[in-house]
Amino acid sequence: MADFKNDSITRQEDDFAQWYTDVCRKAELMDYSSVKGFIIYRPYGYAIWEQIQEYLNKRFKATGHENVYMPMVIPESLFQKEKDHISGFAPETLIATIGGQNELDDRLIIRPTSEVLFTEHYAKVISSYRDLPKLYNQWCSVIRWEKTTRPFLRGSEFLWQEGHTMHETEEEARTETLKMLEIYDDLGRDLLAVPFVKGRKTDKEKFAGAEETYSIEALMPDGKGLQSGTTHYFGTGFAKAFGVQFQGRDGKLTNPHQTSWGVSTRLLGAIIMVHGDDNGLVLPPYVAPIQVVVIPIAQQKPGVIPAAREVYKDLADAGLRVKIDESDKTAGWKFSEYEMKGIPLRVELGPRDIENGVVTIAKRHNGEKISVKREELVETINRLIPEIHKEMYEKALKYLLEHVTEVHSVEELNAALEKGGYAKMMWCGEQACEDKVKEMFQATARCMPFNQIAFDETCPICGKKAKKVVLFAKAY
Amino acid sequence: MADFKNDSITRQEDDFAQWYTDVCRKAELMDYSSVKGFIIYRPYGYAIWEQIQEYLNKRFKATGHENVYMPMVIPESLFQKEKDHISGFAPETLIATIGGQNELDDRLIIRPTSEVLFTEHYAKVISSYRDLPKLYNQWCSVIRWEKTTRPFLRGSEFLWQEGHTMHETEEEARTETLKMLEIYDDLGRDLLAVPFVKGRKTDKEKFAGAEETYSIEALMPDGKGLQSGTTHYFGTGFAKAFGVQFQGRDGKLTNPHQTSWGVSTRLLGAIIMVHGDDNGLVLPPYVAPIQVVVIPIAQQKPGVIPAAREVYKDLADAGLRVKIDESDKTAGWKFSEYEMKGIPLRVELGPRDIENGVVTIAKRHNGEKISVKREELVETINRLIPEIHKEMYEKALKYLLEHVTEVHSVEELNAALEKGGYAKMMWCGEQACEDKVKEMFQATARCMPFNQIAFDETCPICGKKAKKVVLFAKAY
Repeated sequence: MADFKNDSITRQEDDFAQWYTDVCRKAELMDYSSVKGFIIYRPYGYAIWEQIQEYLNKRFKATGHENVYMPMVIPESLFQKEKDHISGFAPETLIATIGGQNELDDRLIIRPTSEVLFTEHYAKVISSYRDLPKLYNQWCSVIRWEKTTRPFLRGSEFLWQEGHTMHETEEEARTETLKMLEIYDDLGRDLLAVPFVKGRKTDKEKFAGAEETYSIEALMPDGKGLQSGTTHYFGTGFAKAFGVQFQGRDGKLTNPHQTSWGVSTRLLGAIIMVHGDDNGLVLPPYVAPIQVVVIPIAQQKPGVIPAAREVYKDLADAGLRVKIDESDKTAGWKFSEYEMKGIPLRVELGPRDIENGVVTIAKRHNGEKISVKREELVETINRLIPEIHKEMYEKALKYLLEHVTEVHSVEELNAALEKGGYAKMMWCGEQACEDKVKEMFQATARCMPFNQIAFDETCPICGKKAKKVVLFAKAY
Repeated sequence: MADFKNDSITRQEDDFAQWYTDVCRKAELMDYSSVKGFIIYRPYGYAIWEQIQEYLNKRFKATGHENVYMPMVIPESLFQKEKDHISGFAPETLIATIGGQNELDDRLIIRPTSEVLFTEHYAKVISSYRDLPKLYNQWCSVIRWEKTTRPFLRGSEFLWQEGHTMHETEEEARTETLKMLEIYDDLGRDLLAVPFVKGRKTDKEKFAGAEETYSIEALMPDGKGLQSGTTHYFGTGFAKAFGVQFQGRDGKLTNPHQTSWGVSTRLLGAIIMVHGDDNGLVLPPYVAPIQVVVIPIAQQKPGVIPAAREVYKDLADAGLRVKIDESDKTAGWKFSEYEMKGIPLRVELGPRDIENGVVTIAKRHNGEKISVKREELVETINRLIPEIHKEMYEKALKYLLEHVTEVHSVEELNAALEKGGYAKMMWCGEQACEDKVKEMFQATARCMPFNQIAFDETCPICGKKAKKVVLFAKAY
């Protein structure tokens, strides 16, 4: 059907990377700025991020977290207090050296992450167990000076939230680390229709300065993994480095246990790739800034515009996010445009529909068109939204499950990685084997999934005793 | 009454500046960071900002504006394209010179404001009158490297929103400039209970690069003015400098007309000073993150906590922002604490209240206490909230009006500025006279108010023909 064709973007099978960039730009999600690696979040892209913010803010606040704002700069001297942290981040920092036309004595790192600032502040506001837990979150942008960048997936600046919490006990902090991972997993299932694998990172892949890192990992249609969010348990390392102490219930001074956790605009990359097709973006309905677009057909004919406006009003009154396009562009142009933008539902009505008391609904995710009675429209849309969400989630989940391949040998590992997706392997726990897999196949350990049912005695790489189930994949 | 006394902050009449800083810290609105001039927005302070964001986002979206996000850095070469703009901002910029451990070829200015980035982006996305207007807004933080800083009022980093719009015609852009000023004025009246004087800035005081700047000006209890928000009409200056052109309805290429407008966390300073008293912060109810605090009295007595929780639940169910404090601190401590935090209403109930079927309500803004029947509590609170808001606004308005003094001579100007507030003077329009007022009295032209009814023939400074009504004041 010509209506559904948009020739202006590269086809996925021809060049998936180019398809991705085309969608980012043609769907008007972002644009490049004049600073290499820094993108502009255009209204439509930013609106998706706002939906994610709204979901997470509700969940964070319901679990007792409070928003704060820390400075965007960190003195270099302060940054160096936690050794693993600085060595992890130093290579990719942006550093300000001039302020008010004078050379700065202590150079300022533009924040790549804010553990340092939060911990320093916590040292001031925590003195008793009564002050705990402290459950803070911050919405901001951070800078990581990257050599190669891709819209949303890897950029020199990205938007994110970073939670930083302090707890009386190790157990409570560990619970927080896993609780926030669950909230991220819920975000994927409930809002983005993106299924994640949850697991723990290997020591090689964990966050600089953390004792343990957990992550949610998504799988892209090109077979590559995308780390989509992480939570970290820090133990008392930062607290000790920054002198955060509190008087415990026993009257003794001790260090609190710390976590941090974050997701970023990288999630937009996951949404685009997991659901998109050759006609452009396909948005799951709950995260879509516009859920329904109303398009009058043969709108110059009498009665069409008023009828379309009534449809618009009914849908808006029902609390749906709806847009009407009365512009003088052709219906074909409009169809392509809103396909490209991935609006989940299109409602068309023309003179004949009006005569027959019906409207046509087109579903973006599968191209289906149905005709419904005008008076049943709102009810139908309200039924379709959860249905579409479920179908999109299940399709993505099916793809994910079909691309987890259990491997028992180097050959099978190779074949699984060639096929794309996760190679599930029993691993000895030594970094040397991880390094070897990377060297041979450019694949990394994405995570040790929570489901740790052993299926081999030995590590296929070194032949030593296997200890952990690990998922290897090529990754963004 | 001992309950209402908090001795831990400086009294306003002893040292207003110290009182202000004390409230900022003791009400836990902010804390200092280890970088001079950069503050930490603590949960309670940030929550006030979130209320402002919510109000403005609604108003901005209802008037067709869309949120976007631009890079936080601006290449120095790009910044220099508009000459007035760079000369205005250069002295107070923070400049990054090292990225990924390498010296940068084009140094990066951490954004002090984003006209440059918006205009450059607009050059790419505007080509026809059909693309206009573009009505973008951004929430972010900006850097102005300041020598002397004060919490919220003047900082090296502050949070703000910056709107940047492009229009087909001069008239439409001018309308936008004034429309956004109205929204800021509404914000003061409806949410902050802070009355503003609206007017136009003199050329000396206008924004670097603007043709015209308008502002909302608030008056602090120490007699100083506080510029609380500005809107700018740029004409086509930036558009020409950055090559933004569109094909008009007549088919000819022309430059669009531009505006920008912003308010910042400085508004928190206005709220604190306009309403605060010697017991701490006093928050107007609509902007208060917590509107009602419930305090059980003699809470160890049976039945008190359950009754207090029921009160809490009723208020929360009614949509009020409410907190209950069941901690083991004394009631006196709690009273002082929530007085300090400026929570508009306190609901107390103890064993005798429960027996009598009543609760006590204390109003923060005037210290009044009333006893109401338990079953009338929600209804009473719902009535008190708009009442308190109105009383707070009217009190502030009365103070403002009493401190606008018409002056006809240098002596009267001096006397009015000594008294505090705005000296309303007829002015010749020459910058020399503005400079002279500043030199003599350290006062600046705050604005030329919209109400321009002439009352003198000559400018009291130079004796030449008077052209404009101007408000002079000492200012933050």
